[in-house]
Amino acid sequence: MKLENIKIVMVGTTHPGNIGAAARAMLNMCIANLTLVDPQCPVGQVAYSRASGANLVLDQRETVADLPAAVADCSCVIATSARRRSLAWPELEPQEMAGKILQMDDASRVALVFGREHSGLTNDEMQLCNYMVCIPTNPEFSSLNVASAIQLLCYEIYRQQSIMPVARAPDLDDQPATSAELEGYFEHLQRVLEQSGFLDPQQPGLIMQRLRRLYLRNEMTRNEINILRGMLTAVQKQRD
Amino acid sequence: MKLENIKIVMVGTTHPGNIGAAARAMLNMCIANLTLVDPQCPVGQVAYSRASGANLVLDQRETVADLPAAVADCSCVIATSARRRSLAWPELEPQEMAGKILQMDDASRVALVFGREHSGLTNDEMQLCNYMVCIPTNPEFSSLNVASAIQLLCYEIYRQQSIMPVARAPDLDDQPATSAELEGYFEHLQRVLEQSGFLDPQQPGLIMQRLRRLYLRNEMTRNEINILRGMLTAVQKQRD
Repeated sequence: MKLENIKIVMVGTTHPGNIGAAARAMLNMCIANLTLVDPQCPVGQVAYSRASGANLVLDQRETVADLPAAVADCSCVIATSARRRSLAWPELEPQEMAGKILQMDDASRVALVFGREHSGLTNDEMQLCNYMVCIPTNPEFSSLNVASAIQLLCYEIYRQQSIMPVARAPDLDDQPATSAELEGYFEHLQRVLEQSGFLDPQQPGLIMQRLRRLYLRNEMTRNEINILRGMLTAVQKQRD
Repeated sequence: MKLENIKIVMVGTTHPGNIGAAARAMLNMCIANLTLVDPQCPVGQVAYSRASGANLVLDQRETVADLPAAVADCSCVIATSARRRSLAWPELEPQEMAGKILQMDDASRVALVFGREHSGLTNDEMQLCNYMVCIPTNPEFSSLNVASAIQLLCYEIYRQQSIMPVARAPDLDDQPATSAELEGYFEHLQRVLEQSGFLDPQQPGLIMQRLRRLYLRNEMTRNEINILRGMLTAVQKQRD
């Protein structure tokens, strides 16, 4: 996995200084792709000043309206979150996260997603993520600055990458499924489960969340998604 | 070595925001002793705002006139520096540094020394240091923000200090599925796929193998198997 295949996604950031500090932190660790989701502040002089010369990261940033658009081309989406959630996500330590990312092949694209300064990520946004990375912190003062969190995770990736040059050739026959392909599968699955009466469309409850978690943690491939969707289509035809 | 025995020493800092950000970064990692050597800015509203609640670190800070005064009580003084020096200092990676500090006994006191934003430490100041720690960075954009450097080193110390095999408590509500439960699921799945015409019972081919691989690598839980079998039963009923 090359560092070019990693993107840092900042969701709903409110302080331009944090965007600039993030750009500097990223470029310090050779990671240059920054995507802003619905930023709540301008990216102007304050951001450029805090970037301290990491202008290319800011100049080349992408800006999109929502998280699905930011991660559509990614086969692995990793959230950072301090909030405890009722339905626990598969958790990684920063070192595990870096190891996992660096073992992926060069065709994969990975997003590291950082939530709003005050409210983090919504549950709907979490639903798009394969993993949650938890940075160990003081339990009594746990909230990291968002640029500091970006600094720590980029450092772990850069550090591990610089001590293990492993280049895995992409498997041309079976690429990792992208987030958009997974979402297509989940919609198809939900439709079939509603048609069969297994899911009440008014009250899908936790079932779809549990199924998402089950499949998202599994790093599905494109062929596997095709098989699963083939099964769903066969079940739908049988019904007609 | 207890974390209370570590002090962070910032020399000649010019931006109050960096002092505040350092205080937050430190307290996030349970390190609370901050010493300012000849600070070039006031520690006021800007610093407290960036500290985001780590007020106790700022309130309890020491301020001294020069580095010898700051490190007088320390048995180990570690500098951070990006500048290449003619006389190379014994260098440590951040991980080595953390290991070395944590092995010291509880009577030792350690200073981590961070230089001026623009000019680092003088050679005279370096002479007071036992080691130099080098954070791996992009050789073409190597200058870390001082608070980011503090964040990274405090993180390494805290992380290594807190490593106790993450004995995730067993989840009594959701145990790992047994092999027998998984086999029950695979049989059920194959039956439904044959009934729907998706699988030819004479030639199941590679499909079942691929599905097994997909689910087996996923460390399924008992609740998840129950959901998946519930789905299959719903699909079968719909057919009847």
